[in-house]
Amino acid sequence: MTEIRKDPFTEQWIITGTEKEQEFFTSLASQEKTEWKVCPFCPGNEKVSGKEIFALRTPGTTADTPGWEVRVIVSKQAALQIETDPDRRPEGMYDLMSNVGAHEVIIETPEHVKNLSNLPVEQINKVFSTYQSRMRDLEGDRRFKYALIFKNQRKSSKYRLCHAHSQLVALPITPKTIKDELHHAREYYSYKDRCLYCDVITQELRETKRVVEENDGYIAVTPFASRFPFEVWIMPKKHNCDFLKESPESLVNLAKIMKNSLLRIEKVLDDPPLNFMLHSAPYMREREGYWATIKDDYHWHIEITPQVLELSGFEVGTGSQIQPLLPEVAAQLLREIKL
Amino acid sequence: MTEIRKDPFTEQWIITGTEKEQEFFTSLASQEKTEWKVCPFCPGNEKVSGKEIFALRTPGTTADTPGWEVRVIVSKQAALQIETDPDRRPEGMYDLMSNVGAHEVIIETPEHVKNLSNLPVEQINKVFSTYQSRMRDLEGDRRFKYALIFKNQRKSSKYRLCHAHSQLVALPITPKTIKDELHHAREYYSYKDRCLYCDVITQELRETKRVVEENDGYIAVTPFASRFPFEVWIMPKKHNCDFLKESPESLVNLAKIMKNSLLRIEKVLDDPPLNFMLHSAPYMREREGYWATIKDDYHWHIEITPQVLELSGFEVGTGSQIQPLLPEVAAQLLREIKL
Repeated sequence: MTEIRKDPFTEQWIITGTEKEQEFFTSLASQEKTEWKVCPFCPGNEKVSGKEIFALRTPGTTADTPGWEVRVIVSKQAALQIETDPDRRPEGMYDLMSNVGAHEVIIETPEHVKNLSNLPVEQINKVFSTYQSRMRDLEGDRRFKYALIFKNQRKSSKYRLCHAHSQLVALPITPKTIKDELHHAREYYSYKDRCLYCDVITQELRETKRVVEENDGYIAVTPFASRFPFEVWIMPKKHNCDFLKESPESLVNLAKIMKNSLLRIEKVLDDPPLNFMLHSAPYMREREGYWATIKDDYHWHIEITPQVLELSGFEVGTGSQIQPLLPEVAAQLLREIKL
Repeated sequence: MTEIRKDPFTEQWIITGTEKEQEFFTSLASQEKTEWKVCPFCPGNEKVSGKEIFALRTPGTTADTPGWEVRVIVSKQAALQIETDPDRRPEGMYDLMSNVGAHEVIIETPEHVKNLSNLPVEQINKVFSTYQSRMRDLEGDRRFKYALIFKNQRKSSKYRLCHAHSQLVALPITPKTIKDELHHAREYYSYKDRCLYCDVITQELRETKRVVEENDGYIAVTPFASRFPFEVWIMPKKHNCDFLKESPESLVNLAKIMKNSLLRIEKVLDDPPLNFMLHSAPYMREREGYWATIKDDYHWHIEITPQVLELSGFEVGTGSQIQPLLPEVAAQLLREIKL
C-alpha cells in the first residue's frame, strides 16, 4: 500500500510504502550486485522496458519496436499510480492521500550511451522537447499540480542501468522546495517589484566570476551560495516562469548550454554521480488566486548538483550545508577546462 | 577564506570556502584511501587530537592527558572560527557573514569503540550531560543563536575514524530546518492551543503501531511521514522546548532509550551508516519578541536517520522523499528484534 503522507513538523510530503519488507531488504542486499546483461533501454528490448507512452520516431515505425529517437515509458519502479484518486484524508491528527501521480522514464537516445552530455546538441534538443510534450500532456489532468523532471546520473558500472535516461514525476501537490522558491521569489518581488532571478542574472553577468557558460538565451552559473561543490544553475536570460513557454529555437540554446555545462562538470570531477532537476512554475490553474503573481516573480531554471560528498548530520539537521569549495573557484575551474 | 552565505532562493545559509582547490581535490581523492594507523581519539594521543575545551575526568588528572571519560576538543576540520566577528554584510544583492561559530568534537569514551550504542548507559548519560555543559557554556556567547549536536556514524573501516564521537556546532543564525519546525509548531499551536509534538506523542501512544521503545521519560517512534527507512525520533513525553532544562534523572532515561533505539536500528540494518541530530529550542534570548511562544509550542527531540539509500534528484528537487518502507513495518521490525 503506497501513500503520500504529510510530515506535520515541516510540511514535506513523503511518498511511502512503495516496497514491502521483503522487497526492501532484497533491494538493499542486491544494490551493486545485480548485473545488467541486457540493457532494457536499447532498441529491440522495448517489450522488456515497458509500454510506450510517447516517442519521437521515424514515420511508419510501430510503438514498442525500434525506430524511435526518444522514448517515454512508465517507470517499472513507479512510486505513483495514474489510475487512483487523490482521496485526501486525515488519520487522527495526520494528513495523507493515495499515491496518485505519474512516474515516467524518458529514454534519451537509442544508443547505449551513459551521459546526456555525450549526445549531439540536436539529440539533447529532442530530449528537451520531449520533456515539454510530456509536461503539456499531463497538465490536462486536473489532479496534478506539479511536474518535476529530474535525472540521476551515476558512475559507469555493470551493476547500473548505464543508458541515458531521465524521469518525470507529476504530483497532486506542489513540493516543498518549489513552494519555498515561490515564497521567496514573491517576497522579493513584493519588496523590489523585480524578479529575484532576473536580479541574480544581472549581477552575475556584471561580476562574471561565477559564470560558467553563456549563450544567446541562457546563463550557467555556480550559485553564490552553492549547496554542493560544482553545483551549476542554468537560467533563461529572458524572464519566464514557465519552461513550457520556451520556443523550439530557445530549446536549441538550452541544449547547447546544458551539454557544455555537464561536460565541464564531468571533466573536472571525472564523471561524478550527479543529479539535475528542472524547476518550472506549477501548472497554470495553480496560479489563480494565491499564485496570481507567479508569472511575474518566478523564473524557471535547471539545477545541476554533483554528488561527491557524504550526507552529514549537519546537513540533515540544519538544512544548511558545509560546502568546502567557493563557487568562484569552481566556476573558474569549470570555465578553464578544455572541452 | 570561509564565509557563511545566504541562498536568496530558499533562505538556507551555506558555510563555504572551508577548503581551497588543492585541499578539496586531495580530500576527494583520498576518501577511503588514508588508513588510520593511530587513533587520535584514544587516551595517550591527546596531543594529536587537539586542545581540550572540556572533559569529565578523574580528579587530579591534567588536561590533554589520559584520565578522562568524555573529552571535548575543537574540530580539526572546523568550518567555523570562534575568534571572528559576524560582520554581516551585503555583496551586491547577496547576503553573507564571516564564519563565526564553534565547531567541537565530543569524544564519547576513552575506549576504542565505534558506536555510541556499545557504551554502558552510565557512559551515554555522561555524553548527554557533556552536551548540556557545552551548550550552556556557548549560550553565554551572544553571537550564537543556535547550537546543534549531531553525529555521523559510519560502517567500520580502517579508513575511518572509528572511535565514537559526536559534534557540536554553534551558529550565528537559526538554521532553516529549525525555523521550519518552529514555524509549523507555532501555526499548530495558534490554531489548536496545544503543542504539535505533544499531540503526536498522544496519538502514537494510543495507536502504538509506530512506537519502538518507551520508558518513564521518553518515547521512540518511527515518524508517520518518515523521510528515511527506519528513521526514529526520540521525544520527551513531558512538554519541554529546551534540552538544557532536562534534569540529570531525565538524562538517564534518555541514555536508556537512545542506547536501545540505536541498537535496534544497528541490528535490523546490520550497522548502517546513520546520523542523529538533537533539535532543541534556539538560545533563550532568541525567544524574546518574535520567538515569544517557543516555550509553549516547540518540543525538543532527537532525530535518528539511517542512510541506506542514495540521494536522488527527486529528493533534491522537491524536498520530498520516496521512502520505500512504511514506518509501521519499520517499527514492528525494530520492536521485535532481540537485543
